[in-house]
Parts: sequence; structure tokens; C-alpha cells
Amino acid sequence: MREDIYPTRKSDEPRLQKREDPTVWSEWHADAPLSREQTESYRKNGFLFLPGLFQGQELHTLLAESSRLRSSGQGLEPESVIAEKDSGDIRSIFNLHRQSETMARLFSDRRLAEVARFLLGDDVYIHQSRLNYKPGFRGQPFYWHSDFETWHAEDGMPRMRALSMSLLLTDNKGFNGPLMVMPGSHETFVQTVGETPDDNYKSSLREQKTGIPDNDSLTKLYETHGIETPVGPAGSLLIFDCNTMHGSSANISPLPRSNAFVVFNAWSNRVQAPFAAAKARPEFIAARENAQPLKAELAPA
Amino acid sequence: MREDIYPTRKSDEPRLQKREDPTVWSEWHADAPLSREQTESYRKNGFLFLPGLFQGQELHTLLAESSRLRSSGQGLEPESVIAEKDSGDIRSIFNLHRQSETMARLFSDRRLAEVARFLLGDDVYIHQSRLNYKPGFRGQPFYWHSDFETWHAEDGMPRMRALSMSLLLTDNKGFNGPLMVMPGSHETFVQTVGETPDDNYKSSLREQKTGIPDNDSLTKLYETHGIETPVGPAGSLLIFDCNTMHGSSANISPLPRSNAFVVFNAWSNRVQAPFAAAKARPEFIAARENAQPLKAELAPA
Repeated sequence: MREDIYPTRKSDEPRLQKREDPTVWSEWHADAPLSREQTESYRKNGFLFLPGLFQGQELHTLLAESSRLRSSGQGLEPESVIAEKDSGDIRSIFNLHRQSETMARLFSDRRLAEVARFLLGDDVYIHQSRLNYKPGFRGQPFYWHSDFETWHAEDGMPRMRALSMSLLLTDNKGFNGPLMVMPGSHETFVQTVGETPDDNYKSSLREQKTGIPDNDSLTKLYETHGIETPVGPAGSLLIFDCNTMHGSSANISPLPRSNAFVVFNAWSNRVQAPFAAAKARPEFIAARENAQPLKAELAPA
Repeated sequence: MREDIYPTRKSDEPRLQKREDPTVWSEWHADAPLSREQTESYRKNGFLFLPGLFQGQELHTLLAESSRLRSSGQGLEPESVIAEKDSGDIRSIFNLHRQSETMARLFSDRRLAEVARFLLGDDVYIHQSRLNYKPGFRGQPFYWHSDFETWHAEDGMPRMRALSMSLLLTDNKGFNGPLMVMPGSHETFVQTVGETPDDNYKSSLREQKTGIPDNDSLTKLYETHGIETPVGPAGSLLIFDCNTMHGSSANISPLPRSNAFVVFNAWSNRVQAPFAAAKARPEFIAARENAQPLKAELAPA
């Protein structure tokens, strides 16, 4: 039987387990795409926030592309478009790097891809990408979770050697339902309870119900690590480890919240059969057949 | 027919109307219970936040009483206890000043009642009081509203000569669903659309559906005024005008949020027949027969 060092959704009791993998897989060096302080902060906290990384014309191009994608919907794969549970508003467009050249260029920009290569110490490929849009007034919360828990259970990602980047396409304020993280929580794996239902992704992209950490585990993590809410202008970049506990509250403000989201996985960490699901999720959620190592790209987006 | 200078729930079209009443009804003087700066800030913003007003043994007594009330439930009027929609957890205990001597003493403390007398320029009475508890993990949002809109429509409060005070009984952090206010919004009355259903209060105390401002009005207020989130430790006091637009987001953090809440109304502004409802709400929500002017109380709580 295949070894599973991060068992989850297999026991009746939740359990906290120490992480078995490094967070930063390279030695820092003077030519690294992050400073020594940034690298250490990421290692310690499991996330790094770079305010205002994209600005001016570059940002304008990304905002225009985001707007075009959300408003036309034309030519998009229907299954890649996820609507808000109550209102029907578009909440996410998956497979973004295969449906938009502008976004593909963004994700292979060295400010993103080169940082991912450095932190993961390997060639990288895009495991998942999407455009997220949380509307104002009635935007729903997204509950606490570790992405790795899902990717391990449902996609068969073997080790914690992946990370996410979220490029803000609207201002993130404290009041418009921004992403909240528990700094340092990436060092603990929360084994969750409950088997994965068949075709779980069809509902879990709207509201996750399996792989949810229990209240006691969340309380322990909170008491140890607290909660931080990185906020900043459109064009800021949030980088976070695959196992960092995160979630977002409702958005009752009139200000929507949007970001372009990409998951880089180490080439050596490509997905296998799911560790806790009967069937793998489709390609548009978790690249498998289509995985290709990103080429080093030095030109700006 | 009785004059209604703040018509609401009567037209098919929402409308923004300029406030016709002062916010501060006294001239400031050197013996006033607020400084000149505090008074001007309240007049301009429609709220005033006093961090750490209660501390030490005083605060401890209030926290212990809050805990006792929520845990025993014994001897409380059943209709005064409101449970969270999904979980059944206690969300509010109304008629607090008639069910707890400690809380009655708090509300008549000069740091609260004397400030209310000064700002409203009149004797005051308690229109409503309650203990609020928003649990962690799955605490629901409370959508934007002006309290006056409801008090006018459903309780028959004639003029904007009332204010609320919320004494924090837990720390208010940015991440645990704290009250959000639109500073300056108290100068605009948002006429809402839709008739008041019979016995509306039975559901509206959990989730308000009538008297809700429309998206366009909220967007206009937001663009003019923005949103502020007063945060601070348990023992802080938030004072806000009856017409200040406010709401709170969900609370997915493990940290619950609780406060003791009291509405002071000017004695000269006592409630009449409702302006937009068939029947007045019961006494435990809106004092009518039981209204009594608060005695000046100089001893600390």
C-alpha cells in the first residue's frame, strides 16, 4: 500500500500533526528573487505580502482583462465558471492560464514563477489557476481550510511542496471580506474527519463541507498563531504556503473583492491518485495530464 | 393625518432624504461629560468610540454577569431570548435592564446616561436594551441598517433624538465580525421599500428583511462616507446616533463577540403609534408603557 504521511478524512477523530516538509526548499543566495528577510518571513509565517507589486499600465492591463473575462463569459469552458450560491453572480473562473493569454503571461512572469521556483527549489507547473470575484453586499464567507488538505485528499498531491499566489485586482480593505491567514499554521497539518463524497468538487467550489477543520483544532491554531489580514491596493501580491490555514469572511460592503489566483506545484511533486477520494478531480481544477513545467520568463508581463 | 417627516416603507422607490434634526442637542460647556473635540467628532461622524472606558474590577463584574445570564438562562423571560438562526446558540437577551441589576446600574452610570442626556439635550429613558453574543466559527452577518428607520416605522419614534451605546464585553478585532459604521451617514435618511409584515420582529431580530437599504443607496453612502470599523479591548464603549448606517460581517474566527447594548431616547421623543406597521412591537423590544426617565446617578457602576 502507498505511504500516506498526511492522512486525512480517514479517522473519526481530528488530529493535529507536525509538518514533515520544509517550507523553503532552496538555500537563500544573493541572486534569489526574494530578500533574505522576505524569505525568512515566508518560512516563519507561511505567507508573504508584497503591497503594490504591480502598478500603472501593467495593472491596468490585468484589470481590463479581468473585466473582459467576467463580463463576456464568451468562449469560456462552461464547467470552469462557478456562480455565487444565492445570487448567481460569477464567483470564479477556473483554468485561467489556458483561457487568457494575459493571465498566462502574468503567471509566468518572473516576479511570480521565479519566486515559486526559488521557494519550492524545483521546476514548477500550474496545478490550478482561477479568477475570483466576491461581490459586494451579499458576498458569502469562505470557511477556514488548508488547501493542501484538499489537494492531498482529492487530487493526490503527495507532499507539502506547493504554494499559492493571489494577485489583488481590487483594493483589499479590512471590511470587504479579505483573506485572513493564521501565521505559522503551515507547520501543523490538521487531519479532518468525514469521507469525501463523490464529485465533491461540484459543490465544494461554492461552499466547502468536507475537509473542514473542527472547532477545537481551529481554536488551538488560533491561540498559538492568531489571525492576520493582509490588506493593500489592487496590484498587491499575497504568496502563501499550501498548508497555511486561511479563510475569508462575508462581504456586506459595497466594494467587491477580486483576485487572480494561481497554484504552483513542484515538478517533482506532481499529483498521483487521490489519497482520500474515489476519483480524481477534473483537469480544470487540478492539472494532471496537462501539467507542463513553466519556462523561465524574464520579460515583464 | 399625523405628520411623518421621515416616511419609509411607503413608496416603491427608495429615496435619500436630508436629516431634519440636530445630532447634538446641547450647547457644549466646560462641565459637559464629553470634551469639545469628542462632541464635535460625534456631531460630524455620528459615532464616538471610547477605548477601554471600563477596566479592572468594574469590567470583571460586567463580564461575570454577562456569562451568568447567557449560561443560566434561568428566570429570563422566554420571549426576550433570541437564538442564532442555524446553530440555536443564544444571540441576544432583550430587556436587559429589567432582568439584571448589574446591567441596569451600568446603563444608569453617568459615563453612559449623563452623556446621553447631554447629547440628546433632555431627560432620557431606555427604549431598548440587550446583551448581544455573536459566536465564533459560524456567526452570521447582520446587514446594513439605520436603527431609526426601524424604530420610526415599527415603534413610532417620531424624531432622530435617540442614540445607542454598545459596551464591548469581548475584544473587538478586525477579524471577529465587529460593527462597521459609515461615518457621516447619520445626516441622510434612507427611505426603504416594502411594507412591514405582521409580527415582523419575530424574524427580524435574527435577520432583518424589511427596512433594508437598497444597493444604490448604500453605494452612494459608501462613496461619500466610506466605512470605519472601531476596534478595541473589552470595556470599550461605542456611542452612535440612531440614524448612523451600520452592520457587521460574519464571524468565522474562533473569537466570539459580545456586547451590552442600550438605546437612550429623549423623554420628549417618546414613541407613538408606529409610522409604518400595523401593530407596535412588544415592550421588551420598545419601551412604551414602561418608559421611565433615568435618574441622574453619580456613583460608578
